[in-house]
Amino acid sequence: MNPTNDPALVSWVETAQGSDFPIQNLPWGVFSFNDGPARVGVAIGDRVVDVGVLAEAGLLGDVPADVFATGVLNDFVRLGPAVWSRTRARLSELLRADVGRLRDDAALRARALVPLADVRLHLPIRVEGYTDFYSSREHATNVGRMFRPDAPALLPNWLHLPVGYNGRASTVVVSGTPIRRPLGQTKAPGEAAPSFGPCRRLDLELEMATIVGVDTEMGRPLTLEEAERGIFGYALLNDWSARDIQQWEYVPLGPFQAKVFATSMGPWIVTAEALEPFRVEGPKQDPEPLPYLRQSKPMNYDVELEIAIAGPGAREETVVGRSNFAHLYWSSAQQLVHHAIGGCAMKVGDILGSGTISGPSEGSFGSLLELTWNGQRPLRLADGATRGFLEDGDRLTISGRARRDGVTIGFGACSGVILPAPDFRG
Amino acid sequence: MNPTNDPALVSWVETAQGSDFPIQNLPWGVFSFNDGPARVGVAIGDRVVDVGVLAEAGLLGDVPADVFATGVLNDFVRLGPAVWSRTRARLSELLRADVGRLRDDAALRARALVPLADVRLHLPIRVEGYTDFYSSREHATNVGRMFRPDAPALLPNWLHLPVGYNGRASTVVVSGTPIRRPLGQTKAPGEAAPSFGPCRRLDLELEMATIVGVDTEMGRPLTLEEAERGIFGYALLNDWSARDIQQWEYVPLGPFQAKVFATSMGPWIVTAEALEPFRVEGPKQDPEPLPYLRQSKPMNYDVELEIAIAGPGAREETVVGRSNFAHLYWSSAQQLVHHAIGGCAMKVGDILGSGTISGPSEGSFGSLLELTWNGQRPLRLADGATRGFLEDGDRLTISGRARRDGVTIGFGACSGVILPAPDFRG
Repeated sequence: MNPTNDPALVSWVETAQGSDFPIQNLPWGVFSFNDGPARVGVAIGDRVVDVGVLAEAGLLGDVPADVFATGVLNDFVRLGPAVWSRTRARLSELLRADVGRLRDDAALRARALVPLADVRLHLPIRVEGYTDFYSSREHATNVGRMFRPDAPALLPNWLHLPVGYNGRASTVVVSGTPIRRPLGQTKAPGEAAPSFGPCRRLDLELEMATIVGVDTEMGRPLTLEEAERGIFGYALLNDWSARDIQQWEYVPLGPFQAKVFATSMGPWIVTAEALEPFRVEGPKQDPEPLPYLRQSKPMNYDVELEIAIAGPGAREETVVGRSNFAHLYWSSAQQLVHHAIGGCAMKVGDILGSGTISGPSEGSFGSLLELTWNGQRPLRLADGATRGFLEDGDRLTISGRARRDGVTIGFGACSGVILPAPDFRG
Repeated sequence: MNPTNDPALVSWVETAQGSDFPIQNLPWGVFSFNDGPARVGVAIGDRVVDVGVLAEAGLLGDVPADVFATGVLNDFVRLGPAVWSRTRARLSELLRADVGRLRDDAALRARALVPLADVRLHLPIRVEGYTDFYSSREHATNVGRMFRPDAPALLPNWLHLPVGYNGRASTVVVSGTPIRRPLGQTKAPGEAAPSFGPCRRLDLELEMATIVGVDTEMGRPLTLEEAERGIFGYALLNDWSARDIQQWEYVPLGPFQAKVFATSMGPWIVTAEALEPFRVEGPKQDPEPLPYLRQSKPMNYDVELEIAIAGPGAREETVVGRSNFAHLYWSSAQQLVHHAIGGCAMKVGDILGSGTISGPSEGSFGSLLELTWNGQRPLRLADGATRGFLEDGDRLTISGRARRDGVTIGFGACSGVILPAPDFRG
């Protein structure tokens, strides 16, 4: 076991039992404090460690301090897996209860540790490209049953390759950013002509983002091993979706306006290394994938995921869905290798959306489309209200955590409040 | 008429009759000379004007010289339409035969004018997002007939909205960049299982790129008038396509690996202002579009387009297709307004591919898929060779020019040579 993942490790930074951010996690993010510049940090307990301060103090060996002062993680990530691992090991050491270097330096500690409650969190990485996959068999089957009721739910290619498409990077925003209900064209099957107006079936998609940590040259494919080594980590992702717009526009070139208005990303990137103890087998792949997609070891992760809604003014949120990252049929490494196989140039800062992660049971679906079966079976919230799709003022939150041996590796939360559609006269 | 477009204008820079780059054009590009840094320039005759040199010499008024020294056009474009127009007017004036300021300053002229033959041309703009539309009715109909022979060729949404999808920005490359044949998964309809290997139906798509010159805030739609004002200009675009990969992968989320391996862009961006005299009505839109898409004046441009192939070692290229930008059913302004209507944040440096521009006759189709009807009717090249799809070593070139009153507004050429697929063992 990597010593940074040892469940017996304890930090001198106070960490509540069950906290998302024990010393075994150390997820990466970007924060600002008192309207200062955005800085790279890692979370521990209810603190953020300003990693640049430690680097400037000479505590991180040969990692140049300037990569932490750019306001995004890209420059650090570009240094590659050996540096990710070495930096993580060093941070773990500096934060261990039995190591005094930082613990006992009050002045440095005061500069390096900031209360999480006092910071503003930013998008952790400059998103170069955003690609969204469709890798949950249950989700693809459910959508196929609803959108194409007269055809086989799963299309012929689905079991042979990780179906995916290019998303829109410019509207990937950090958790907490308000989400404006989109305008668009819709046409219900019975209507003679399309109409224009606010989306009436606004939905979430419960996903994980894979953060790509490798630049590849155009024309040079990756192997599966290179792809796996090139994954920096994972974050929560909510690919907001306008189902009525989607159903009208998506043939034959896929979703466009139904998705480009917003995608929310969690503020914390949990490293692949921190997730190592949670590696599990995914669903059995039958038929066996082509050789370039074949995995020789478990490539999924056991991460519990949750969807919660709080209506406007609600005192508490209601958990409406529970799923697990492990349900994905195609792993993140398979997605990345497929993405690069034709010679697509991959970039540090690309994110790969897993696709909506639905489990086999009704309560484990990853979208309201599925949880309410296209609005036909509304959900009941704690305050008695019901929901088919999202209403203005709703706060939607997804969260994720991996748990084992008393240790929780949490992803924090990824939230957004729905604002009314803009008042627009074209 | 804008005086910069006056067909009677003559420059003191020698310009051959019929040159793509008379003083009425002044297209923008990025070049380097003698391995020096990339600089912003405009083409005139067989010269490139180093615009930064003129700005540093104080000849461009209040436009800051540093926007021309960044190696991309984005910073200049971000200054907005009034500055684009003012700068163009000033460049036109400085290059006019009857204006001596630059003409008679031998030292400055020597620094500011570089022979086009001696420069290396770069991607003119940092491509923030690449969206590809599908706006030629003839192309959509042809593809529908081939890919979905048992269904109506044009899908129900097509006449109501400009169908489009997100493309991959990281592999948009400048003309001249060699294109490696992609590897990928394919399955012919008769085969039991897919196989992996080099693409066997490699194609071009004859397109124009619209260069977006406006940043919009997420959640704020554009009007059609704002969209039109926000278009900086146009360039040639070849959206290389792997038809066998596309046919297997594209349902239900659209093309992915079939397109992400490469898209070639012409080196010159012709401004919307230079194209103003070539504005023409597009095809009649019936049914009338929804109000947000309604145009009150002609929004297409009469630009003749050409596709030429030269096989390996061929002494001359063969023109295999001739089309026209004016054939597009949905205009670039309609594409942009539709893109932004749901609140997608648009960026200076976004490019919108028009979609393959096919005309009504067989010789006017914009792809080999259509020109050879999926390889069934091979084309004959000048040297007697035939082509269904592209072969290794082929040089494919698209070009475009608008002509009127003895003036040619040319886009130059956009070429790529096909390299063999990589030798890859996954």
